[in-house]
Amino acid sequence: MTINEYINRYIDEDFDVNSPLPFPIREKILPKGTMLIQYGEIERHAYFLKEGIVEIHIHNGKAENILEFITPFSFFCSYASLLTGLPSDCRVECVTNCNVTVVNQKDIIDAYRHSLIANKLGRYVTERLYLRRSTREKQLLNTSAEQRYIQFIASRPELVDIVPLYKVANYLGIHPESLSRIRKK
Amino acid sequence: MTINEYINRYIDEDFDVNSPLPFPIREKILPKGTMLIQYGEIERHAYFLKEGIVEIHIHNGKAENILEFITPFSFFCSYASLLTGLPSDCRVECVTNCNVTVVNQKDIIDAYRHSLIANKLGRYVTERLYLRRSTREKQLLNTSAEQRYIQFIASRPELVDIVPLYKVANYLGIHPESLSRIRKK
Repeated sequence: MTINEYINRYIDEDFDVNSPLPFPIREKILPKGTMLIQYGEIERHAYFLKEGIVEIHIHNGKAENILEFITPFSFFCSYASLLTGLPSDCRVECVTNCNVTVVNQKDIIDAYRHSLIANKLGRYVTERLYLRRSTREKQLLNTSAEQRYIQFIASRPELVDIVPLYKVANYLGIHPESLSRIRKK
Repeated sequence: MTINEYINRYIDEDFDVNSPLPFPIREKILPKGTMLIQYGEIERHAYFLKEGIVEIHIHNGKAENILEFITPFSFFCSYASLLTGLPSDCRVECVTNCNVTVVNQKDIIDAYRHSLIANKLGRYVTERLYLRRSTREKQLLNTSAEQRYIQFIASRPELVDIVPLYKVANYLGIHPESLSRIRKK
């Protein structure tokens, strides 16, 4: 799926997939291990993942947690840094070889000034990210380790077979041994 | 501040505060204790808080947590329910007398079809909500009770004198007695 097809499918069915986007894009092939942004850098790009898996990590000075697994076809970046211009408190890493479409932050901001479709796209993508963050926050405040694992399997089935268990445990804020016990049940 | 003034200040300085909004609105005065949405109901409105304080709560079957304190001048509602059409997993309560501007969900969706300013507003408000949720999620995953209290004082100074301590403890996921110890330090 391209960004044009994404817009046609989710945002505006009248959008012709062959019409130009309201911002310039470029395609990139990124080898496994590529770090798209490091802690403390300022995010200057947004990415659309066409192939591969990306992880977003945060660090509290002692340990690192997985904040998010990104799978095709979704937008990602260090979004808080992109929005605020503040240094990133997360790092973004390609954990497989990835194909991405890249958009410059500056070009997004320009397009937001006048383009209806750019604003529809920005709003829709931010809504999806909001729902993801909001669900996670409620889970962390409010559910047991077992409930979190069951919800993970139900909501991200595409990840179950490809992400190592210790990473799933880290993402869910569960001790790896507790996750093994939960899985046996 | 009105919604028109909010748009002029944060979204588009060329927006004339006397020009009509892209959706109908109505003003409402709500007495303290008004429940704007209960668990399990579907959100049909968005609100702009002009005066008062609103709390958003979630419940895990055992205990209730405060998810958010809303202060003037911001938009609020059970937003995940508004976006998905699914039953609300939170309740929204006026904890003081409140003045709000109400917009119907249906009218927002209509305006999103064609209106640049409605999409700019929806995008901007969702970006702010995303940043709030994302910050909270990282705090819950990743910071000590003491760090969370310090961040709360720094980021929400307008709440420190008016919200009772047991509610702040609940919001931060800290035991009330631990919060007392932290405050003594």
